[in-house]
Amino acid sequence: MSEKAPWITYRPELKVLDCTVRDGGLINAHQFTDAFVKAVYRACLAAGVDYMEIGYKNSKKIFPKEQFGPWRHCDEADMRRVVGDHDSATNGLKLAAMADAGKSDWKTQLLPAADSVLDVIRVAFYAHQVSEAVEMIAHAHELGYETTANLMAVSNITESEIDTVLEAIAPTQASTMVIVDSFGYLYREQIDRLYHKYAAAMAGNGKEIGIHAHNNLQLAFANTIEAIILGCNRVDATIFGMGRGAGNCHTELLLGFLRNPKFDVRPIIEVIQHQVVPLREQIEWGPLVPYNITGQLNQHPRAAIEWREGPTPDDFLAFYDKVVAEI
Amino acid sequence: MSEKAPWITYRPELKVLDCTVRDGGLINAHQFTDAFVKAVYRACLAAGVDYMEIGYKNSKKIFPKEQFGPWRHCDEADMRRVVGDHDSATNGLKLAAMADAGKSDWKTQLLPAADSVLDVIRVAFYAHQVSEAVEMIAHAHELGYETTANLMAVSNITESEIDTVLEAIAPTQASTMVIVDSFGYLYREQIDRLYHKYAAAMAGNGKEIGIHAHNNLQLAFANTIEAIILGCNRVDATIFGMGRGAGNCHTELLLGFLRNPKFDVRPIIEVIQHQVVPLREQIEWGPLVPYNITGQLNQHPRAAIEWREGPTPDDFLAFYDKVVAEI
Repeated sequence: MSEKAPWITYRPELKVLDCTVRDGGLINAHQFTDAFVKAVYRACLAAGVDYMEIGYKNSKKIFPKEQFGPWRHCDEADMRRVVGDHDSATNGLKLAAMADAGKSDWKTQLLPAADSVLDVIRVAFYAHQVSEAVEMIAHAHELGYETTANLMAVSNITESEIDTVLEAIAPTQASTMVIVDSFGYLYREQIDRLYHKYAAAMAGNGKEIGIHAHNNLQLAFANTIEAIILGCNRVDATIFGMGRGAGNCHTELLLGFLRNPKFDVRPIIEVIQHQVVPLREQIEWGPLVPYNITGQLNQHPRAAIEWREGPTPDDFLAFYDKVVAEI
Repeated sequence: MSEKAPWITYRPELKVLDCTVRDGGLINAHQFTDAFVKAVYRACLAAGVDYMEIGYKNSKKIFPKEQFGPWRHCDEADMRRVVGDHDSATNGLKLAAMADAGKSDWKTQLLPAADSVLDVIRVAFYAHQVSEAVEMIAHAHELGYETTANLMAVSNITESEIDTVLEAIAPTQASTMVIVDSFGYLYREQIDRLYHKYAAAMAGNGKEIGIHAHNNLQLAFANTIEAIILGCNRVDATIFGMGRGAGNCHTELLLGFLRNPKFDVRPIIEVIQHQVVPLREQIEWGPLVPYNITGQLNQHPRAAIEWREGPTPDDFLAFYDKVVAEI
């Protein structure tokens, strides 16, 4: 990257993961049509996206298939129905699924990577679940997957807890340690501190640092840029910012920012127009005032989501007063 | 500001200017009801905002009053009808108006500050108009106003042109030199370069650096934070981001970020709910895909605004192809 005008050059090692179907699917219990998922897949392929996260590998007992759709479990037949004879070795797009500690039957649910269309298992966990996460990473790695470690809700735990998690993850086979701002609370200086903490803990073991930002304060894209400037090479986004509550960093903004000529924003704009905008007309997401309020207070957006689904969704002032009173 | 966690401390010298009526008014030719302007005024007062920009001091010949409403000219009677016996010396809220070089009859239009409810004249100009801007600043200063220099569309001129403007503004009586990202194009590293350039040029003459950001890339708030971190002490925002095209940095996000206990976001949320959301239902603004596209290409949002007012506003792909073809 040039020292003079780094915003017009690029780092070839920077890779984009689109998690529209996985994370965006939390807005509608993953009730996507196959046509929708296929359109997202084709857009990712055409746009030069590096990884597409197509869903979860979570427990069918906790998330019955008839209620949560195919993308909570990513059975091979479901994925193949959408991606056909997909082969990442020839088309360059790796497919990923997320397994949640505490919610996944990972010991029995994961096939050997050679028998799966998936290349990557991302392990998501809260700090207190780090020991299970370490086991999950080891298991998925043994099965032949690339793995990542995604410590969620980092804004809500102590620095000592973060340090302990990083110490536990450092010796694992995870390719990437991801900074996850679940509550969309972090400002730029906090991203800086976390990046330096994560990078120092992973130094020398070849791990990349990732960023997964939420848009409660309209800062998801900005915080992603900040992490990239610092050296983050694994970057999450969703198309049109689709995601629960305030949503995510927008894939189309991210690709428009990145200067690697392999990326093309046009297919993303196409799928926004034909697939995502029609969905947005039925289901709401984005950095609305109630999400601004929970974000600023470092709270889970749950209360804001419930407010928007309640009888007085536009009574922002009543929501503000309620939340402030309950602190 | 603490070195350890600067995001929970504050700089008392940082002042907020709300330009909802002035800049936001460009979406509707300033056709606000008095009740709307009064509600914004009361919200600014209650929220601890330092400056409220209530409109323009622009030519009545170029902008006939019957077509552009009272806030293009800010006649004393119009302002007094809304702000009553306002006195900034007692209530702490200074009123500002903007005068555009080339569009203002400033030689005849400005009253002595002692006879006006206004405290501040902000002089807006393009680089080639800097000589008129210098004269305007001198004139307004002689009349007793605080003045600022707002060089517009800075992303669209050369570094030498910026340097020449800064040299011309440095010896004036302007209190503040404002970084204005008219096209919503600038990324964080560009804000850094501009801030350091502006600050170096103004060093030793007591001028503050200001920031006025647009939201084409969802970066208005983030770039404002960045400028604040660097040392910027004059910060523009509009309520609910109201403004032409993609809009501005949101006042409610900014006040939620600032930790000076004199600021209170609640009155801003109240006016959003009762005044601004109803207006937003009639008139569109915000970082929609067409504004993302012009922002990424460093273009004036004019083409995107026209597209949204045209026969196929949601055909983002056609807009993208048109803009890319015309580069």
